[in-house]
Amino acid sequence: MENELLQELITCNNTKIAMIILDGLGGLPEVKGGKTELESARTPNMDALAEDSNLGLSIPVRSGVTSGSGPGHLGLFGYDPVEYQIGRGAMEALGVDFDLKPDDVAARGNFCTVDDKGYITDRRAGRLPSCESEKLISLISGICIDDVTFDVRMVKEHRFALVMHGDGLGSNVTETDPLMTDTLPLEARATNKDSEKTARLVNKFLAIVSEKLKNLIPANMITLRGFAQLPKIPSFKERYGLNAAAIAVNGMYKGVSRMVGMSVLPVHGESPADEFSTLESFWSEYDFFYLHIKKTDTAGEDGDFWRKVHAIEEVDMLLPRLTALNPDVIVIGGDHSSPAVMKFHSWHTVPLLMYGKYVRADCISEFGERACTRGSLGVIPAKDIMPLVLANSGRLAKYGA
Amino acid sequence: MENELLQELITCNNTKIAMIILDGLGGLPEVKGGKTELESARTPNMDALAEDSNLGLSIPVRSGVTSGSGPGHLGLFGYDPVEYQIGRGAMEALGVDFDLKPDDVAARGNFCTVDDKGYITDRRAGRLPSCESEKLISLISGICIDDVTFDVRMVKEHRFALVMHGDGLGSNVTETDPLMTDTLPLEARATNKDSEKTARLVNKFLAIVSEKLKNLIPANMITLRGFAQLPKIPSFKERYGLNAAAIAVNGMYKGVSRMVGMSVLPVHGESPADEFSTLESFWSEYDFFYLHIKKTDTAGEDGDFWRKVHAIEEVDMLLPRLTALNPDVIVIGGDHSSPAVMKFHSWHTVPLLMYGKYVRADCISEFGERACTRGSLGVIPAKDIMPLVLANSGRLAKYGA
Repeated sequence: MENELLQELITCNNTKIAMIILDGLGGLPEVKGGKTELESARTPNMDALAEDSNLGLSIPVRSGVTSGSGPGHLGLFGYDPVEYQIGRGAMEALGVDFDLKPDDVAARGNFCTVDDKGYITDRRAGRLPSCESEKLISLISGICIDDVTFDVRMVKEHRFALVMHGDGLGSNVTETDPLMTDTLPLEARATNKDSEKTARLVNKFLAIVSEKLKNLIPANMITLRGFAQLPKIPSFKERYGLNAAAIAVNGMYKGVSRMVGMSVLPVHGESPADEFSTLESFWSEYDFFYLHIKKTDTAGEDGDFWRKVHAIEEVDMLLPRLTALNPDVIVIGGDHSSPAVMKFHSWHTVPLLMYGKYVRADCISEFGERACTRGSLGVIPAKDIMPLVLANSGRLAKYGA
Repeated sequence: MENELLQELITCNNTKIAMIILDGLGGLPEVKGGKTELESARTPNMDALAEDSNLGLSIPVRSGVTSGSGPGHLGLFGYDPVEYQIGRGAMEALGVDFDLKPDDVAARGNFCTVDDKGYITDRRAGRLPSCESEKLISLISGICIDDVTFDVRMVKEHRFALVMHGDGLGSNVTETDPLMTDTLPLEARATNKDSEKTARLVNKFLAIVSEKLKNLIPANMITLRGFAQLPKIPSFKERYGLNAAAIAVNGMYKGVSRMVGMSVLPVHGESPADEFSTLESFWSEYDFFYLHIKKTDTAGEDGDFWRKVHAIEEVDMLLPRLTALNPDVIVIGGDHSSPAVMKFHSWHTVPLLMYGKYVRADCISEFGERACTRGSLGVIPAKDIMPLVLANSGRLAKYGA
């Protein structure tokens, strides 16, 4: 829906909305003619809810496009993921739980090896073990140059995320990784005027880091790439009038939620059951809850069909704890497909269930890809889900007389 | 999908794609409650392929719009037919196999009859027989004025296509056909500066033609209309990274294919079987094959329900020759509907089958309009087919992290 129209129609009330996202939910059969992961899972609670719901299939970004989790979530949250793009560096920083602010500049970093002339001999410092990286990061994090601080946090092995915090920073800065060996790291260069300060300070930072690491072969230098700031994006409160909360275990999902102005709630533990406990604890405090399940995607990417099935079944068993709270609207869906047989994200449409007290139920008592094909929501862009959520919760006024 | 996004995601590989287009495929039942042409056809091979495919219905241009074959094909090839328009003159020239170049200007022409004062007495020269037209065309084709050549080729009866080839031509030129009798043919006028040379030379050409035909009543003059150039359109190679080939018998389809940069392959004969022979011969040489079947549309336009049924059955019997080549992706669809009961193109959606090694099959073992309504592709604009083809052939990279 056009932003202006949405703004004109938004009203507020006391309804409660829950959006349960099973990461990479969509799947494929293991064998030709067989069932997908979701179809194979025993999901009596989802099936019962489906009976009273609308079913459909969502397109995360555009038809045929395999979506990353970032764009996939923007779509679910009602933001066109082509209009709002989260740069690589920002994504990396969100992924390691940086509380990235709108003016911060983030980048992806690598430890690398250089010879005594400064030429890169190994772009990944021999894939430095994470425990080694941790020690080095403590040496290069927290450096302050002029009024800008450089915070560094480990991602994995030789990879880290850098966040620059200060005034007057821009992210139009070229990468310092030459993407080949036997050459010097590149200088950072600003590609617009607003990023000149950033480039200048990045080069100073690199000189300081080089000095600090110089005797620490194999990780005696770093490269930086994917400089990015968060997109300027209206919050859930501004856009929908919703006080929204996020329940997620992994950094990136918390980060994307924070970016759209959700409160990120504490989860004691890492299991879906722990996340449902958080949901119960905070139920009275927010209008909208986004609850993220990671296991489904991890199993899909690992190619473990049955682990994905079991992850879905685990969520199904927890579902009565949600329905007991009597939400006005429940969405169950995914940010993209991750079929176990492909061991990767895919372009396939994603099963979608929308329960609401006033839905015109499809009376299909099954939640699965083929069942969703028969649903009345049809095949819709993920960004169209939120307007339907708002409608079903009575939060969109009549348009025109 | 937005062009920029598509460009960003395109990758190349060695997959093979076949798009089989049955012209005017969509139909209507002969009697209320009955079956359409496609539903009536015995299509065991398409039905078996449907079982392992996604089904849906395509909208050639926009909901409710009856599409010509030109826009219908642009949509199938992934170009929005409202954004890219092929003018009437260009269409006519493509239809008679002119190898129209981007800077050429084409027009539709009529032989007409004028009296001794030059007033039009018959706009169609008594619907001159084609054999007579052929002789006259030899008199007026190949004329060169300044650096511009005027090539003329017969369409049918009194109708011909004109192509102007030379530098500095524009197509914003008014028509010379007054669309009524008892009046002089109009002068060609340029409606923008870039077309002034064209208008000037067209008027010179008309004077020469008038002189050459003056004693050849009833066809002693011509009129010209629909001046047009090809739209500036990115090629399949530029847009999709695909080496594409077209297999078609009729001029217009070869022309539209050539316009998007496909190689038009030779077909020895005119039957669908001959076209499949070409497909087999060139299978190793291209990534993408478009194969066009004309018979279905001709039968539909002739109002011959069962001839259309048989044309579909003929293609079905040839399908094993395609599947034996083991394509990664197969599309079977149409450029528009041509229901025999309407004897004309229509706005109805068009059955669409998309087979791929990684489709989440709909498990519907029938290819027909009503079966396609139940398919998971839903009702989609034809221009969204190509992104799905690219996805299914592994040619679109992941979007975002």
